[in-house]
Amino acid sequence: MRFFSDNAAPACPQVIDAIAAANTLDTAYDGDRWSQQLDGRFSDLFGTDVRVLWTPSGTSANCLALAALCQPHGAVICHRDAHIQNDECGAPGFYLHGAKLLLADGPGAKLTPDAVSGVLAGIRDDVHQVQAHALSITNATEYGLVYTPDEVAALGALAKARGLGFHMDGARFANAVAHLGCDVADLTWRAGVDALSFGFVKNGGMSAEALVFFKPELAAASLYRRKQAGLLLSKGRYLAAQILAMLDGDLWLANARAANAGAAMLATAAGDRLVYPVEANEVFLRVTPDEAASLRALGFDFYDWAPGEVRLVTSWDQQEAAIKPLADAIAALP
Amino acid sequence: MRFFSDNAAPACPQVIDAIAAANTLDTAYDGDRWSQQLDGRFSDLFGTDVRVLWTPSGTSANCLALAALCQPHGAVICHRDAHIQNDECGAPGFYLHGAKLLLADGPGAKLTPDAVSGVLAGIRDDVHQVQAHALSITNATEYGLVYTPDEVAALGALAKARGLGFHMDGARFANAVAHLGCDVADLTWRAGVDALSFGFVKNGGMSAEALVFFKPELAAASLYRRKQAGLLLSKGRYLAAQILAMLDGDLWLANARAANAGAAMLATAAGDRLVYPVEANEVFLRVTPDEAASLRALGFDFYDWAPGEVRLVTSWDQQEAAIKPLADAIAALP
Amino acid sequence: MRFFSDNAAPACPQVIDAIAAANTLDTAYDGDRWSQQLDGRFSDLFGTDVRVLWTPSGTSANCLALAALCQPHGAVICHRDAHIQNDECGAPGFYLHGAKLLLADGPGAKLTPDAVSGVLAGIRDDVHQVQAHALSITNATEYGLVYTPDEVAALGALAKARGLGFHMDGARFANAVAHLGCDVADLTWRAGVDALSFGFVKNGGMSAEALVFFKPELAAASLYRRKQAGLLLSKGRYLAAQILAMLDGDLWLANARAANAGAAMLATAAGDRLVYPVEANEVFLRVTPDEAASLRALGFDFYDWAPGEVRLVTSWDQQEAAIKPLADAIAALP
Amino acid sequence: MRFFSDNAAPACPQVIDAIAAANTLDTAYDGDRWSQQLDGRFSDLFGTDVRVLWTPSGTSANCLALAALCQPHGAVICHRDAHIQNDECGAPGFYLHGAKLLLADGPGAKLTPDAVSGVLAGIRDDVHQVQAHALSITNATEYGLVYTPDEVAALGALAKARGLGFHMDGARFANAVAHLGCDVADLTWRAGVDALSFGFVKNGGMSAEALVFFKPELAAASLYRRKQAGLLLSKGRYLAAQILAMLDGDLWLANARAANAGAAMLATAAGDRLVYPVEANEVFLRVTPDEAASLRALGFDFYDWAPGEVRLVTSWDQQEAAIKPLADAIAALP
Repeated sequence: MRFFSDNAAPACPQVIDAIAAANTLDTAYDGDRWSQQLDGRFSDLFGTDVRVLWTPSGTSANCLALAALCQPHGAVICHRDAHIQNDECGAPGFYLHGAKLLLADGPGAKLTPDAVSGVLAGIRDDVHQVQAHALSITNATEYGLVYTPDEVAALGALAKARGLGFHMDGARFANAVAHLGCDVADLTWRAGVDALSFGFVKNGGMSAEALVFFKPELAAASLYRRKQAGLLLSKGRYLAAQILAMLDGDLWLANARAANAGAAMLATAAGDRLVYPVEANEVFLRVTPDEAASLRALGFDFYDWAPGEVRLVTSWDQQEAAIKPLADAIAALP
Repeated sequence: MRFFSDNAAPACPQVIDAIAAANTLDTAYDGDRWSQQLDGRFSDLFGTDVRVLWTPSGTSANCLALAALCQPHGAVICHRDAHIQNDECGAPGFYLHGAKLLLADGPGAKLTPDAVSGVLAGIRDDVHQVQAHALSITNATEYGLVYTPDEVAALGALAKARGLGFHMDGARFANAVAHLGCDVADLTWRAGVDALSFGFVKNGGMSAEALVFFKPELAAASLYRRKQAGLLLSKGRYLAAQILAMLDGDLWLANARAANAGAAMLATAAGDRLVYPVEANEVFLRVTPDEAASLRALGFDFYDWAPGEVRLVTSWDQQEAAIKPLADAIAALP
Repeated sequence: MRFFSDNAAPACPQVIDAIAAANTLDTAYDGDRWSQQLDGRFSDLFGTDVRVLWTPSGTSANCLALAALCQPHGAVICHRDAHIQNDECGAPGFYLHGAKLLLADGPGAKLTPDAVSGVLAGIRDDVHQVQAHALSITNATEYGLVYTPDEVAALGALAKARGLGFHMDGARFANAVAHLGCDVADLTWRAGVDALSFGFVKNGGMSAEALVFFKPELAAASLYRRKQAGLLLSKGRYLAAQILAMLDGDLWLANARAANAGAAMLATAAGDRLVYPVEANEVFLRVTPDEAASLRALGFDFYDWAPGEVRLVTSWDQQEAAIKPLADAIAALP
Repeated sequence: MRFFSDNAAPACPQVIDAIAAANTLDTAYDGDRWSQQLDGRFSDLFGTDVRVLWTPSGTSANCLALAALCQPHGAVICHRDAHIQNDECGAPGFYLHGAKLLLADGPGAKLTPDAVSGVLAGIRDDVHQVQAHALSITNATEYGLVYTPDEVAALGALAKARGLGFHMDGARFANAVAHLGCDVADLTWRAGVDALSFGFVKNGGMSAEALVFFKPELAAASLYRRKQAGLLLSKGRYLAAQILAMLDGDLWLANARAANAGAAMLATAAGDRLVYPVEANEVFLRVTPDEAASLRALGFDFYDWAPGEVRLVTSWDQQEAAIKPLADAIAALP
């Protein structure tokens, strides 16, 4: 049983069905009837006028967002453990033509205004040093922690005060919203977020993420950047259809709730072994190498994250029956 | 009835079925059992050891290929009407970090050794001028002409003599092979081609192209470039499965033959109106604006390509019944 | 006697003296008392508020200007024979991160509104094609022709109407002004020019060019780009001092007049052999290979520009006595 | 009296004289008789066949070196306090097209094999993480410490074992050699260094640094990169002449000894206040704000480096008489 990553899970049936249903002649690229609905559907969801681009990967969604917020001679402030820093093979450097990432610290890959201010304080205001143009946070974070609307708003206020664009990597945005039960507007544009990578792939999608611009004027150049990066797929309807299927009836939220519930069950079993509170669908556990081996011997697969620490990720399709054996095994560790 | 582009056609049923069949838990990225088959399957097809990367678009396949063959301070020679020059929003400039395209001429978007030599002759051998590092041709060309193995080999010999990498944009490679009935090896690596963008999307695929390296050592860095460009989709199995489905039983060839047959039927009807011989699935027709309007009034949709010239593209799914009304209408033009 | 290029001439004595005079302790980079005078001195010269950056080469001046006017996904329209296209080893591609040059034609490397409009008309207004962001002209042109204020203004009006930034490569700006005898304001900002590469090196300078922004707000990011490109020399005073020395008493104009006078003398001797009217300090001559050889046998050195065509360039330091022998030799050709 | 930076010092008289002596007609760019001597002169100095490019700034020398050693999808390991990381406005990101800098720690901005190995150990060997392609050290370091030949060789051996290119930023290479009294070969190519930025500007030069390639085959592409970056000045003889003047009679070494001697005098006066041993021409001092103010009140100018810490830099032209007042004032601090 695989607890390696929500990336490995299958797509949910509604997504597969939507792809099949979209399998008909239509306009190429994003001129089709599905793609044309995205702006409206997301504007409804967020309660404000947004512009939305589908893109086939989270990395590209993040980088197109950042390219809209940071010039090549600038920098993006992010957490030292951010996905854009560690797990995208330098994609921001490529998309932003050499712009830097400036790293801030904080427990659980979570940034605070103090941490960001500290980075800003370390930059001399002269041409010899790269100036910050944007701030990027991940919600839920790479360690499964969730920023609340107030926490995002505090960062958004700082970003605004310092003239920084504000990006949210929402590869697990759905899990964050499911945890918070809040209005998506409060977690994003009302808190100062300019661009959101709204992830679907880890949450039951197949190959489509939504890049949401809360400042519609940022989208125009991004359409060219998307094409220039080879991301404007010829048959975009299959991507748009996936996203629409997951918006229908708030399937995205239901899927995220299911994944979060699985993680919560593991968290309960883990007790003191938890490295971080479990707020989304990731569980970081303190285990000895022997304990890890014993769990693997039972057929559970997961990441060795750091010495004495493993990562378990639950997925949208793992029902209680799929989780319980692992929960029991964890609880039974000596 | 749409003759706009083969890009607009649906995916073929085997592709949709393959996606559904791949909808199960597996390793993320390209570690899954489908992706792992690509090298072997294409090596069998081409009769030599190749390395293959899936990628979600033809533009990205072309650019990853070129980035393996041309440094940022170099140039790629291509035809003035090449897709990489005109229809990719400058993607080669982005992926190759500012490298130039040097444009050669020739009827029907087809290059000859003379045309390429002419470009080379125009470059002074000093640091003030951008030197050519690679050559790129499109087969079938943007005007539906097909390079024969001998024609490719002549260009390949020139490329080798001048130290140029040699790329083939095969967005319609299947149509070229279907026309020629030749061994795919003769049309590619035996003729000196280093990298091929083997297109599937225009030929019944959904969102997967194969980038084939005939020099396996070129692939290693390309794996990093693919990730850095945000093209390494999390759930790569859905791309690999599409490609494998189209290789099964030479479906790719059957689809291309069907599209070519449709174009041939239109060509026969068009007679003297043809701008170019019809060798693949594109038909360029001389028509007056009134004639174009009369065809559109009958429900046929197509591109105005140039003054007095329209483009008709047939697709894998257009049977004789779908083509005949247009063929008849063309034949009936006064 | 060398008529190869004005690049090869020595620096004028005032420049050497100014360098020696600046050889004292002062603030590094551009904080010194010489650099600090540039904005004011050029604002006086142009009769408007400008911002000026020194830079050690014409190529870098051009590219910093263009980077301020064109985004990485855009294009710059220029003449097919422009220096930025042919003689900078792809520097615009590097500095503009992959942006394209779109080439227009016209006799003598001179653009007209019609030529520029023709390029614009060839660009489909969709994301598949690179859109023009800027226009760049060279004055005097690469063939020694001079745009008049009216000609520049016509291009400037077009640029403004089409939302294009407008750059003038003035590697031989001084020669153009010397020819026209006009107000420099009329040839630049009053005619819609946003940024000027004001060349000094070909005109008696040693290693300093002035990048003049007529829209002061364009300069801020350029200061960072200059540093990021390694062009912010530690001891900038030696560059600023050169420029100031050439502004003093309009030395730049005197030098250019001298060079132009030499070219005029050659032009008179050349008569019907001229390929273009001689308006600046370049003379393009029709000669047979034998005639070229006979001139070289007399000790004159120059460029073979094209079959049957040679280029002669006169320099600031070539007095009548230095020119007359060549003029006589040309006149004496059979 | 200025102890701000050796960047602010004037050029030494021999350099000014050499510039004046080079003020004659010669071939443009690097075809002149001075530039043509560089390979030979540096090959003699280093006792091996090297290729040398002049360039007008240390930042550009560093970046051209790194661009020869690291591909755009790779990374360069350097110290957290390295000049390329903190003081070049992101120039490596620009020149290396988005490649990353990976930061290692160590006292005094000095790297050890352990520190570098630690960075390497933190990189997963998969396409999701940027792989290291090169290592860069600064000698003397940004804190005025000097790597010995053995220390460099230990890093060189690690670099070779791990397939990393090895660059030395020698903005103060002369000061390091003056301190060590060693053979320059032992400090560079015999210790595994592939490319050296040999600084002259901080050591009495005006505007010329030498980029030395110990692997001659690395130079070819660098010649194109130098031109593409706008760094191939038209009148290169003025740069080459500066460098040759400083090589003559080992002026570079004499100048560095003078600067080092000044720093040594300050170090003696400073005693326990020294933050680092003084090995080159930089002195880092612990002083209170009041003490710093009292020194400034006496007319001494210097950098506030960190809270309670100031930086004093001595220059080639500061004789004992220029240093002693500051030494006395430091010694007299309560």
